[in-house]
Amino acid sequence: MTLDVVFTPAGLAASEVQGRVVFVVDILRATTTICAALHHGARAVIPVASTEEAMRLSQTLGADDILLAGERGAVRIPGFALGNSPREMVPEVVRGRSLILTTTNGTGALLAVSGGARVYLAAGVNFALVAERIRAAWLAGDQILVVCAGREQRFGLDDAYTAGRLVHAALGGGRGRKGINDAALAALELVRRYGTRWERPLTSSQAGRDLIRSGFRDDVADAARPDAYPVLPLFSDRRITAAPASESSDTSSTP
Amino acid sequence: MTLDVVFTPAGLAASEVQGRVVFVVDILRATTTICAALHHGARAVIPVASTEEAMRLSQTLGADDILLAGERGAVRIPGFALGNSPREMVPEVVRGRSLILTTTNGTGALLAVSGGARVYLAAGVNFALVAERIRAAWLAGDQILVVCAGREQRFGLDDAYTAGRLVHAALGGGRGRKGINDAALAALELVRRYGTRWERPLTSSQAGRDLIRSGFRDDVADAARPDAYPVLPLFSDRRITAAPASESSDTSSTP
Repeated sequence: MTLDVVFTPAGLAASEVQGRVVFVVDILRATTTICAALHHGARAVIPVASTEEAMRLSQTLGADDILLAGERGAVRIPGFALGNSPREMVPEVVRGRSLILTTTNGTGALLAVSGGARVYLAAGVNFALVAERIRAAWLAGDQILVVCAGREQRFGLDDAYTAGRLVHAALGGGRGRKGINDAALAALELVRRYGTRWERPLTSSQAGRDLIRSGFRDDVADAARPDAYPVLPLFSDRRITAAPASESSDTSSTP
Repeated sequence: MTLDVVFTPAGLAASEVQGRVVFVVDILRATTTICAALHHGARAVIPVASTEEAMRLSQTLGADDILLAGERGAVRIPGFALGNSPREMVPEVVRGRSLILTTTNGTGALLAVSGGARVYLAAGVNFALVAERIRAAWLAGDQILVVCAGREQRFGLDDAYTAGRLVHAALGGGRGRKGINDAALAALELVRRYGTRWERPLTSSQAGRDLIRSGFRDDVADAARPDAYPVLPLFSDRRITAAPASESSDTSSTP
């Protein structure tokens, strides 16, 4: 078994993803927002790379139950129904609908790992479920890859801390470090530093500080609420859906 | 003043480098080896991207006092006089000569930052000098960039720890964290973890373990010897030379 963390998806080759159980992290805010949407009844979230692709796909699908969502520079894309805030993903708006989502970092990370054997989305708001899932994958001897969206192709403290929490969960508190890469080791140090409370690493990170400065303090607070949106998003066949409850508690993770 | 760390040079734009005081780290082994060469009397080290370019440049210069050096997969390039081991850089071989060097990660990192206002090379073997230099730059209010060579475009624990030591030196033990990026914060955590002894982070890193497995245990041990090669390599006009002693102790770092 191996467990590798990458701090950005930059340069990730298809061959590095293939056959692996992948966990994608963009806690501020894409994976948090997607958890909120699915937990509140959205049928699916379809990640796309660009504004243009989002609009084109929306026209192709043409259905009434499609919502465009996304941001650039943290701000909702003009003409889109929704931004990238978990606060917008309320049941009255998203229930029964599919979202087409494009964000600065998160959707790119998702598209980079679409070839994984299984691709889960991780955040603080669904941490207990992903922790259980990564632990099961580790015990099953799977090849695991944790992909941080990061920040414009660079290291982001918020995602790296979350990755550390995942590594910690996978190892189950065991002290062995065999099979984990340098980035996973460094991510673990952030857990040692910040403990199990999400606020500090999120508000200390550049992404968190930028969001707070842009008026999204509530979104950062939302992202720091453990298990607020207990759902296990699974990215498969170009769309993200909530894994069925049986999958969530399934201890055999063989893809 | 700002102090940014990047864990790999991948995607580094010229605009991010321009006007900045840059410290390049490839402790296993390029920056260590270059310190050894310059300390033992090499006139200059010229980093190039490829084996072909090394050979072409060697032919163009055509001088007797040129040595080809470099590795791929840690092993000396066939036909080259030297590999990339600090142990090879003995006075009898390198004194008065110029080396053309190409390595898997380090020389690429150097070429990526050649547009910096000043570009220094950092390792454990010259740490006191670079620590003094980065502290002076920080106090002078310079824009500082620490570039880790990393490992095939990925995070490497060995370089990240060294970057953390540099950040720690820059801040001078101060507790302020203003102006430093997320990667610098994470690198500092590695110093908190490993303390000031170089052995542990080097031998724990994938690069270190790979070198040991390939029979280069002595090189890892060499890299962990603080101030074994007290020289301040400065990369300017395509070549790396030892900064004069006055520069080493100059406290004004304005480029």
